[in-house]
Amino acid sequence: MTSDLARPSLPLRAELVGLEPYGAPQLDVPHLLNVNENPYAPSVDVVADIAHDVAEAAAGLNRYPDRDFRALRADLAGYLAVESGVELAEDQIWAANGSNEIMLHLLQAFGGPGRTALSFAPTYSMYPEYARDTSTRWVVGRRAEDFTIDPQAAAALIAAEAPSVVLLASPNNPTGTALPARTLEVILDAAADVPGGCVVVVDEAYGEFRREGVRSALHLLADRPHLVVSRTMSKAFGLAGARVGYLAAAPALVDALRVVRLPYHLSAVTQAVARAALRHAPALMAQIGSLRAERDALVEWLRDRGLRVAESDANFVLFGVFDDRHAIWQGLLDRGVLIRETGPEGWLRVSIGTPEDMTAFKDALVEVAGL
Amino acid sequence: MTSDLARPSLPLRAELVGLEPYGAPQLDVPHLLNVNENPYAPSVDVVADIAHDVAEAAAGLNRYPDRDFRALRADLAGYLAVESGVELAEDQIWAANGSNEIMLHLLQAFGGPGRTALSFAPTYSMYPEYARDTSTRWVVGRRAEDFTIDPQAAAALIAAEAPSVVLLASPNNPTGTALPARTLEVILDAAADVPGGCVVVVDEAYGEFRREGVRSALHLLADRPHLVVSRTMSKAFGLAGARVGYLAAAPALVDALRVVRLPYHLSAVTQAVARAALRHAPALMAQIGSLRAERDALVEWLRDRGLRVAESDANFVLFGVFDDRHAIWQGLLDRGVLIRETGPEGWLRVSIGTPEDMTAFKDALVEVAGL
Repeated sequence: MTSDLARPSLPLRAELVGLEPYGAPQLDVPHLLNVNENPYAPSVDVVADIAHDVAEAAAGLNRYPDRDFRALRADLAGYLAVESGVELAEDQIWAANGSNEIMLHLLQAFGGPGRTALSFAPTYSMYPEYARDTSTRWVVGRRAEDFTIDPQAAAALIAAEAPSVVLLASPNNPTGTALPARTLEVILDAAADVPGGCVVVVDEAYGEFRREGVRSALHLLADRPHLVVSRTMSKAFGLAGARVGYLAAAPALVDALRVVRLPYHLSAVTQAVARAALRHAPALMAQIGSLRAERDALVEWLRDRGLRVAESDANFVLFGVFDDRHAIWQGLLDRGVLIRETGPEGWLRVSIGTPEDMTAFKDALVEVAGL
Repeated sequence: MTSDLARPSLPLRAELVGLEPYGAPQLDVPHLLNVNENPYAPSVDVVADIAHDVAEAAAGLNRYPDRDFRALRADLAGYLAVESGVELAEDQIWAANGSNEIMLHLLQAFGGPGRTALSFAPTYSMYPEYARDTSTRWVVGRRAEDFTIDPQAAAALIAAEAPSVVLLASPNNPTGTALPARTLEVILDAAADVPGGCVVVVDEAYGEFRREGVRSALHLLADRPHLVVSRTMSKAFGLAGARVGYLAAAPALVDALRVVRLPYHLSAVTQAVARAALRHAPALMAQIGSLRAERDALVEWLRDRGLRVAESDANFVLFGVFDDRHAIWQGLLDRGVLIRETGPEGWLRVSIGTPEDMTAFKDALVEVAGL
């Protein structure tokens, strides 16, 4: 059999045929405001600590890493205690290569064939991909005009669809909307009534940017064995390139994830990088304050110019509404400002950058949109 | 609803209930010969290069990494060209967090519900877990008494079961058995006849340890669009802690994996570590020569003492047969030598360590087994 005669077709799964890989364009322009990265690079101190700790880890890289990364889990628990005021034990923490691997673990354990995952759109566009990757049925309810979730409608949808996993981003991406505690309580109650059980995942990837008075769902963990709160070091910590996501939940729930994770999924280097950065949490938290202030100022500026702006507890702002949003997006890109064409028709999302990034964005928008 | 009243059960998938997480014991003993690690830690030069390149990457960690890690793929292709003499293009290479994530991507794209994955036992004990994690049906044929695969029986099994993925470790773990080119050709032909297509994965995690005259399956890639050859930096490169697995295949096959991978699955730090280590490939290849010599000497020593020993092209040796292998394993552990209780009943597997490790192992075995 030769190569000319034998061109066997690949057994690609039917649901993947013709799909393009997920991801925003990675372009080289001056103002990258499209993927909600932290605009501040790690400081010289952080870089030095990372290099030092990685060198230490590198000397033993011929050995497999600690499969259960207990030291990192303890450090993450320590960080959450300071950040949110909620004390957690090491065995309530889990980590993975980005919060998307966290979601994969959750759906592998609690979703899968014959199961349903449910969320409320518009929301993070990766959620249906996680469901697809785990052959989990995907059901999506709608958010209200102001991007909030109506608690009674949500409870009714949960009762009707009996999902095994509910995914709730708070603040929501791409809208910036935080989930009020009362709404979450109603959803948790509805989930507790699903026959067979239902895990509620509150995705706080942007949790650190929440406004004064908005509480993390971590506060509910003690009473809710079916609640998961996921976080990431990509945003607040400015470590998108290091790929560290994590979650907090009841120990029994975390234990279930240990069965589906690939052994040694978190490298010794990743563990070292995360732990080094966590030692600098106080400095990084201070930086978050300025990003929040920059966000609030941008919201006000956009509204002053007559635009609609979604309430934001994140490091990005959804604004509109434009008849031709693609033209606005392209016009900004032509001026060196890359934002994201996402969310409901007519809306655009811009990440909070440095003051210089924001000035460039505003100047370009005034020109392009004729504000 | 309060915490005392509400203890909703977790919707853990039925096939996971009661399972323990995969993994050999991680014990702190002088001679770690249980997980086929490379006994040689990265050299001072390698550590310095890793630290330097990670520091460089760390300065930009607030940004997401290159999703397609093109530079790393080019470096891996360059390495394979030297190691095996097979020239490959960058778009024929894929990488992930360990070769177990490589296998996950393959089964997500080509396995899944309604599909079958097939292998021949005894073989790597993670294969059925990959199948389970992707809800792929798992079928296992048997290897012969000498741990080889009978080509005609394999072809018949493939025709009967119509798998979409065949997994073949070469050298096989835990037996050390390499797959002869003729056997692989027969299996590839049988796979080409499977309606709907069938991908054949040759897992060369231990490929660099093959004996003189044994060829890598990479040589067949040009003519076989449904062949995948997977490798890892964990073993030959002594980078188990860095978690870098990779594969070579036709560009169309690699393209399919881009759809199922989680975006940014390979961190900027992992990419930097792998590229730094690859620059030291010549020195690492020299080290492999001494591990091979150590292996061949151990095989001979064990046979001289009347034990059965499987032919090994890997950095480990399967030997036996003991009436009570657990007693032998425990006796060795009591003497500071940790090996692996795996493979067919009565057999044990020992990794090739340093000359000091091997002396300790032999001395302990003489005592424990009364050789």
